[in-house]
This record gives sequence, C-alpha cells and structure tokens, in this order.
Amino acid sequence: MSMDIVIAGFGTVGQGVAEAIGLRKDMIRETFGREARIVAAFDSRSAIHSEDGLDPAVLLSNKAAGQVGDEPLVDGVAFLESIDYDVLVEVSPTNIETGGAGLHHIRSALSNGRHVVTVNKGPLALAFGELDRLAKENGVEMRYEGSVGGAMPIINLCRESLMGQNITSVMGILNGTCNFILSRMDDGLPFEQALKEAQELGYAETDPSYDINGVDTACKVVILANSVFGIDCDYDDVDVSGITAITEEAVAMASDQNYCIRLIGEISPDRLEVSPRLISKGHPLSVTGTLNVAQVNTDLAGPISISGRGAGRMETASAILSDLLAIMRSNVNNK
Amino acid sequence: MSMDIVIAGFGTVGQGVAEAIGLRKDMIRETFGREARIVAAFDSRSAIHSEDGLDPAVLLSNKAAGQVGDEPLVDGVAFLESIDYDVLVEVSPTNIETGGAGLHHIRSALSNGRHVVTVNKGPLALAFGELDRLAKENGVEMRYEGSVGGAMPIINLCRESLMGQNITSVMGILNGTCNFILSRMDDGLPFEQALKEAQELGYAETDPSYDINGVDTACKVVILANSVFGIDCDYDDVDVSGITAITEEAVAMASDQNYCIRLIGEISPDRLEVSPRLISKGHPLSVTGTLNVAQVNTDLAGPISISGRGAGRMETASAILSDLLAIMRSNVNNK
Repeated sequence: MSMDIVIAGFGTVGQGVAEAIGLRKDMIRETFGREARIVAAFDSRSAIHSEDGLDPAVLLSNKAAGQVGDEPLVDGVAFLESIDYDVLVEVSPTNIETGGAGLHHIRSALSNGRHVVTVNKGPLALAFGELDRLAKENGVEMRYEGSVGGAMPIINLCRESLMGQNITSVMGILNGTCNFILSRMDDGLPFEQALKEAQELGYAETDPSYDINGVDTACKVVILANSVFGIDCDYDDVDVSGITAITEEAVAMASDQNYCIRLIGEISPDRLEVSPRLISKGHPLSVTGTLNVAQVNTDLAGPISISGRGAGRMETASAILSDLLAIMRSNVNNK
Repeated sequence: MSMDIVIAGFGTVGQGVAEAIGLRKDMIRETFGREARIVAAFDSRSAIHSEDGLDPAVLLSNKAAGQVGDEPLVDGVAFLESIDYDVLVEVSPTNIETGGAGLHHIRSALSNGRHVVTVNKGPLALAFGELDRLAKENGVEMRYEGSVGGAMPIINLCRESLMGQNITSVMGILNGTCNFILSRMDDGLPFEQALKEAQELGYAETDPSYDINGVDTACKVVILANSVFGIDCDYDDVDVSGITAITEEAVAMASDQNYCIRLIGEISPDRLEVSPRLISKGHPLSVTGTLNVAQVNTDLAGPISISGRGAGRMETASAILSDLLAIMRSNVNNK
C-alpha cells in the first residue's frame, strides 16, 4: 500500500528530498492514508536498499559520514532493475551534452512501468519527446516541476490552475544567476564585478558560462515548450543570446527610461528564444535578485505571473515533493 | 451525464460566464467526455429555464435586448428550488452588510446538495464558516477562486500546487483601484488627482470609499484567512487602514529610498490586517497599475508570488470557469 521511492543521485538536492519526505511523513499518511517510503538511494559510488523502507535520517547521516550506502555501485540501471519500487526520483548530476547517467535511469524506470520525478535538465532538454512517449506507453507519469524555476510552480500552474485557458505564450526569467548579475548592474556595477560578486556569494559557478551564455535558460525553454505547448523540440531549436555583451552604459540608459534589462526565455508556438530584453520597472518580470519569474499569457485571463526561488536545496526538494504528492493523488491504487 | 449550471446574476460577470462556457464547449466535451450546460439564468428582474440547456448566445442576445428571461422573477430561492441543476454560479451584486440575495441563493443551493461557484464577496466575508460547513454536510463543493484577485489563481495555487507546503502567511495587493492610485502617485500625482484619473478610466467607482478605505481588501483577507488557514473569522476581525491619508510627500520620500507604498492585506494565524506598507522596488509585491499580486510564504519553498488582473469581465469569468472545471474533474460521477 505504500508508495516506494528510489532516489538516484544523493547530492544537495537528493539529500533535501530525503529530508523533505521525512518532514512530511505524518502529513502524507493523514492525507493519503498510506506512506511514502524511500526504499533505495544511490549515487555514482554506492547504493543502499531495503524493501522495508529506509529512515531518511540514517541516509543523511551515512552521507555526512562519507557514503550513502554500503554496497559499491557498479551500474545504476542494473541496480534499478534489480529492485522493486513505484517512483524514481532522478536527481543525479546533469549533463546537457549526453544526458548523462540520468537519461539511462529515467529510460529504465519508465520502460519498467515506474513513475519518474526529476529536476535533471539534461535528459529533458535532449530527449523530452522520447521520454514522454515512453511514460505514456507504460501508463506512468513523468513529472519535472523543479526542472524549470526551482520552487516556482510554473508547470503545475499551467497544467492545473490554468486548465481552462488557451496559453498563447510564456516569458520568463529562468536563471537566478543572470538575474542577480543584471540586478547588481542596475545598482551601477559593471558586468565583471557583478559576476565576481555572484561567484563570491555562491550564486555563480567558477566557470559561469552555462548560466551567462543562456544555455541553462534554453534548456528550460525546451522543457516548457514540450510540456506546456506540446512542441516536440530540443536544445538546438532555441535561438540563444546570453548576457555577456550587456554594458554598464546600456543598463544606465535603460534605467533613465524606467526600464531594466533582464534575460528572458520566450516560448510560443512560433518562437523559442533566449535573449536580453527591456522590461519596464514595476512590471511583474522586473524582479531583482536570484528570483525566477514567469508570465503566462492566456486568452481569457490575460497575463498571469508567478515567481519563486529558482534554486536551493529545500526549494528544489519541495518542488519534487509536490510532484510526489501529485502522483500519490492521481494514482490512488498504486500497489 | 451533463453538468447542469444555473447562473444567478446576469450582469457583466454573469454574461462573461455564459460566454466563457460557450467558448469552451468543445474543450470541455473532449476533456471530460460530457457537457457543461447552462440550464437556467436569472437576475433581480427575470428568469429563464430549460432542462434541455440554453444556448449562451441566446442568453447574451436576450440580455442585450433588455431582459435575460421571459418569466418575471419573484424570488430567487423559490426559483432555484423549483428546478433541477448541479452547480450554482452565484454572481449577483455583492452586499457586504447583509450578504444580499446571494447569501440566500448560496444557502439554498448547498442545503439542496448543489455545488456552488461564486465571486460574491459579501456572503463569503460574512458567513464563510457557516457556508463551508453547509457544503461539507451536504457532500458538495463551494469554490470561489475569482472572489480574491480576479484572474489571479491564488486559492487554487495554495490548495493544489503548494499542497506539500506549510503556508506561514500570505501578503498581497488585492485591490486594483488602490494599486492604480498608488502607482500614479509614484509618478508624482497627488492622491485626489490619481483618484480622479482612476474614476475617469473606470477603475474607481463614483463613490470610491469601499476600495480606498480598504473594505474590499479586508473582505478578501477574510476569504483567504478562512480558506487557506482555516481561521473562522469575519470582517470585524480585520484591522483595516486605507490609503486616503497617504501624501505626495510620503510617496516621494519612499521613492528616494527605492521603496514604493502599496496597500497590503496580510493574513497569518496571528494577524489579519489591511494597511499601507513600504515595499522595496523590484520586490514581487511592487507591481504597478491595476494588477493584483499575492506572496505566499512557505516553510520549504520560501516565498512564492502570483499576479494577475484583479478584475474584468472575462478575467473574472475565467476564474469561475476554472472552478467549474475543477468540480467536473473531482466529481466524475455527477448525475
């Protein structure tokens, strides 16, 4: 009767998921009348499995002491295919060139009739159409709320709350690193200095190219195009410009006219684009700092905007938790 | 097998609902495998009923020619109790002193085991607890997405997308008239002139006291307190200050420090308040114009904000449509 979960990837987000499931144990039992149990977890080095369920606190202390599991991991797919479970939470490191191990894990889970919850952008940006068909053929769900915008529930908003709307386009700030840099440029800092500050605060990587060249935003554009509009596309279909060419002078000139510059991903049936845009101050897309925000344009309700933290351990874990709860709600008869 | 709807109140919003149902006829049939039909409509003067369903276009042209129906209406409750239907859409004029006719219509529908969808703030602000219990006792749903923030889906966001969160507080701009006036004051206009402009543009009533004194925002605070936090409260439990005492000087001083002044409704287990607050520019609550916005503070995901048009014929009608679709989805076996 329980919903049995495997966590693939036990870094920051994987640990957050274990913690979130532990925190909501009672709430889940009261709401659904059954438990959500972690029955296995693994990363690139080790694995742990118990068909009776694993205590999240033990997983976290194992990891803090060195390794999540006591079995060495040889092959994630072989491990997954050796155990019984209902849902794979796939949060291993992303690789947008090949899809990485995550792509193999997701294919294996869906092919074997297991639901998948993931925030792993590589597999989704490279193979959304294939994975979506695989889920449908096997009668299971693939959910990925946290892959676009972290804690910002843009996908569930479009899917559920805006169900009666025809969505004409989505425009959004989908990368917190770029938004932090552009916000600091609003305050008068040159690009290089704003980037350095972002790196010092841990908002940007040592090699920030993935964020500042718009690659990360483009992956999210692909995911939204596929999931909200049903456009069968991948990374190569997106027109991408980043923020490296934006000067202090351009930001100052925009500001004089009461505008700011933001890196916007735009998705509509005839446009997939990532580019810096002028946004008027006071507009819902003019948020500052590391926030993500998306504006959904609809035929009846007009524009609806949603914002939230685009990254962070518990923020991303909570998006995964909401997907797990949605699967529990719509699959009352699991097992 | 159809879902049979009665529309009580056939003003701007009631007509919008008829139009929206007409527009989504095919989509509803494809999604749910059954029809949503309007079987009756009435306002304070006349009524029309057909158990075979009424054509939305005919209702709209009747109304344009003078009266929605050909029967004179004597008593809304007696009319409702003489016909068979599944859902009452209650959009008659609001009255926050007595609840008006709407309160009687809603009581009648719920007591007779009919679902209710409403945007009528009077009955909800005065008698939320009573109506909510009545719905539960009769095994039906009462939904009211459009009563707070028009097209902004704040209630469904809290209910569905943020289901796994503990919501600690909600803060929002819930009145577009006040936000328009305060936005124009940001541009340097004095209060009286900004109000006059709002009246000329049709955003404020000839007697604007209901909006500018914070009464409308307080009603929405009551609805959110009851629905999101389960606080059994009514209008008298809210601390209310409006925007009439805000001077040009205060707005200018705030602006010098990179803040704006906004009328904020705040709801938390220990605070129900409507008051002008300083909001830093670039914060999700610093939107300009007639938009509504709400920030939902959560324990795991942090703050999530949502914004949308707070009023308008199709905007409000589309919120009602989303409630109707939610009822169709969760009551698959109606009739």
